[in-house]
Amino acid sequence: MTEFTQNQKEVFMREALKEAQKSLAKEEIPIGCVIVKNGQVIGRGHNAREELNQAIMHAEIMAINQANQAEGNWRLLDTILFVTIEPCVMCSGAIGLARIPQVIYGAPNQKFGAAGSLYDILSDQRLNHRVQVEAGVLEADCARIMQDFFRKRREKKSQPNLSRT
Amino acid sequence: MTEFTQNQKEVFMREALKEAQKSLAKEEIPIGCVIVKNGQVIGRGHNAREELNQAIMHAEIMAINQANQAEGNWRLLDTILFVTIEPCVMCSGAIGLARIPQVIYGAPNQKFGAAGSLYDILSDQRLNHRVQVEAGVLEADCARIMQDFFRKRREKKSQPNLSRT
Repeated sequence: MTEFTQNQKEVFMREALKEAQKSLAKEEIPIGCVIVKNGQVIGRGHNAREELNQAIMHAEIMAINQANQAEGNWRLLDTILFVTIEPCVMCSGAIGLARIPQVIYGAPNQKFGAAGSLYDILSDQRLNHRVQVEAGVLEADCARIMQDFFRKRREKKSQPNLSRT
Repeated sequence: MTEFTQNQKEVFMREALKEAQKSLAKEEIPIGCVIVKNGQVIGRGHNAREELNQAIMHAEIMAINQANQAEGNWRLLDTILFVTIEPCVMCSGAIGLARIPQVIYGAPNQKFGAAGSLYDILSDQRLNHRVQVEAGVLEADCARIMQDFFRKRREKKSQPNLSRT
């Protein structure tokens, strides 16, 4: 298991936040992810469901695909996945299937999180792969970008559409 | 909700079994899937993890991607997903995210199934999408292709490697 200092963890979480900004620029739910091996980023991803019309295209999935391609291997041993928001059911399943040993996330997701909130998929003793999970790195920054996005979306929806009057 | 006769269900499960045969031909775990809308197959998929070096490339994921592309939409409303084996955690999550309303599978997966065996993700009242699930269509055929695959793999492993002697 790779041991990073708090500062190193924040450096990589800032890379994940840069990815989340890419989603934000496309008016997608702003979640970003990087996968790190030997101190290098080998996969990056951001939520691009609307842009690509792909239901599965969460930040973690894009990053896992990219890391698989970089490694020429579906197994991502000796890697750490950094993601701004707690992974959902699909992404938690994918993390296990990719044999990623360690996940660090920023803010919890009370509605859809499957790494401790709704489910604890990554620690399930019945599955054949268990993942060490740490929460709370740059939590406030990771949560804020989501809150800003949803507040703006609500404001937009509640505005009268003047172009139709 | 689309209501199919038993015969119609078996026709589509045979299409899923044809997909599983594609995995088998590549020595991959033989699971296949089709997604049907208005009586037409709009997405097909087979497990291709080893071939593509992609941890996420289960039959359901390949079929969802293809159906998303065919529809130009990440939402697969009014579709039915047929899969030879009970979906895992990742695929059950993906089915919900794609808003697929109905899943029919062949044989259960006691070790990894998340549509009733280990988890019941598709019926979870806390998630924002629930899926009608039916099991057991062509169960024996769907189970047999898996059993044959794993038996052959065990036999291969236990054979002495004569080329080395």
